[in-house]
Amino acid sequence: MSFSHVAIIGLGLLGGSIGLAVEEHLPDVKTTGYDADPKVRERARQRGLAGTIADDPAEAVRGADLVILCVPVGAMEEAAKAIAPGLDRQAVISDVGSSKESVAKSLAKALPGHTIIPAHPVAGTEQSGPDAGFASLFQQRWCIVTPPKGAQEDSVAALARFWQQLGSTVEVMTPEHHDMVLAVTSHIPHLIAYTIVGTASDLEKVTRGEVIKYSAGGFRDFTRIAASDAVMWRDVFLNNREAVLDMLDSFLDDLEAMRRAIRKGNGEAMLELFSKTRAIRRSIVEQGQDDARPDFGRHDHG
Amino acid sequence: MSFSHVAIIGLGLLGGSIGLAVEEHLPDVKTTGYDADPKVRERARQRGLAGTIADDPAEAVRGADLVILCVPVGAMEEAAKAIAPGLDRQAVISDVGSSKESVAKSLAKALPGHTIIPAHPVAGTEQSGPDAGFASLFQQRWCIVTPPKGAQEDSVAALARFWQQLGSTVEVMTPEHHDMVLAVTSHIPHLIAYTIVGTASDLEKVTRGEVIKYSAGGFRDFTRIAASDAVMWRDVFLNNREAVLDMLDSFLDDLEAMRRAIRKGNGEAMLELFSKTRAIRRSIVEQGQDDARPDFGRHDHG
Repeated sequence: MSFSHVAIIGLGLLGGSIGLAVEEHLPDVKTTGYDADPKVRERARQRGLAGTIADDPAEAVRGADLVILCVPVGAMEEAAKAIAPGLDRQAVISDVGSSKESVAKSLAKALPGHTIIPAHPVAGTEQSGPDAGFASLFQQRWCIVTPPKGAQEDSVAALARFWQQLGSTVEVMTPEHHDMVLAVTSHIPHLIAYTIVGTASDLEKVTRGEVIKYSAGGFRDFTRIAASDAVMWRDVFLNNREAVLDMLDSFLDDLEAMRRAIRKGNGEAMLELFSKTRAIRRSIVEQGQDDARPDFGRHDHG
Repeated sequence: MSFSHVAIIGLGLLGGSIGLAVEEHLPDVKTTGYDADPKVRERARQRGLAGTIADDPAEAVRGADLVILCVPVGAMEEAAKAIAPGLDRQAVISDVGSSKESVAKSLAKALPGHTIIPAHPVAGTEQSGPDAGFASLFQQRWCIVTPPKGAQEDSVAALARFWQQLGSTVEVMTPEHHDMVLAVTSHIPHLIAYTIVGTASDLEKVTRGEVIKYSAGGFRDFTRIAASDAVMWRDVFLNNREAVLDMLDSFLDDLEAMRRAIRKGNGEAMLELFSKTRAIRRSIVEQGQDDARPDFGRHDHG
């Protein structure tokens, strides 16, 4: 089993990148697309993000054997309802959302009787919208597939193969475990970045101009993440609340320990933490999950 | 007044980059260097980080009219004492440390009667050691000069001109204000990054292997900063304690507010914060303090 017609609902960074990646790696697969925003549809047509861009969601999925919802996780249920009238009974319904337990529930509720296999390609940039996507986004990235209990094995295998063909390595896990893993590798980092950028822009003792000028000391790295799509991230925190709060508690405990170390001048505690964190970086670079060049290669850019 | 012989004490990322930048931009200026580690001196000779590498600190500064201490801020006093026997009475003594109030005190104590003008080029990468430096590190970066009260104006002007010639823009401020500004633009970001990377590597519910695999969701950005030199950063937190604790309190207040918003499902509070942080990113990119390419240009690298 393999897919011959992929419908993409939502044509932002992820949806657009899927369309372009299919065109590059699976040229025989037909793509159709839809976005609720007419301006995005217009731009998607200009960039060719899908073979056909429909003006109606049900129309976009007609005849598709794989439908991928690429909308913020809070908009999944509504998007699923909107495509329902055009859905083929045999179609596999998937998505790219960053929280999986809530998405599994929303889709099961909106599309009873359909084959639903949620997934999450762990890939992205800080940019969003129909101009942000590019074909190589999923290369060398992981895609986590979270099939519900009793999911048909051949459908899961076909979805996994689809992502492999776009350049990803696939891992299967439960939605609950996915949500815990992503809370630490993605959601908490975003929460911290948004928060410190907010803190820095509202200080009394340091002006915003100074924060911008001297951002190369480390702060600028956080601003990249804090430039990510606001609605998408609001929805993540509304939909993965328990795991995020759990991980946030662990982080706050550790930060309190560091505060105590600074207050007491405990250099040994600092040195211990600051020395062990290098090993993780090394593994991430060795496993191809980040650029080995210093400063992410910024200096290679003149 | 301009300098004709620059002595560099400490030949890691910053010291090595100064040597290479002088060679490129000020080829008529003589450079000498020293590092307390014989292996670093050996490597510095191979890379030509300074015209001459001396095996004795006092020897390295003999005849120099500008001496730049490029050692961790906790090692400044000892390094200053070690060069004292060779110092010219007219020489300007400067440094590149990330905390300025403590450095001003250490240097004044170790070198009474000398002209001391501390400075801080806000530039760096996560790498360290004699192989890390490169000539363009200071291009388009700010260098903050923090002269003590009553400092000779021509010496301050000469130091400012030196940094401009290496490609930097110079700003003069008090050591106290510098320490407050850098606490938010550099020290707190490093503290947070070290802490979350530590938290993530010691979880019960998520393995270290999973954290590494799925790091592209945002976490990997923090690991870059958390790979910075451990001793240098321990010294920063030991030497800029008050400002760091002050800024950390502001951050913790804001993080607590976000925790409350997540717990209560207050999407509006999230949306407000997540929307305003984009503007800061835009300004940083517009002012040439970061790369405009998505994902720091990582995807341009194959």
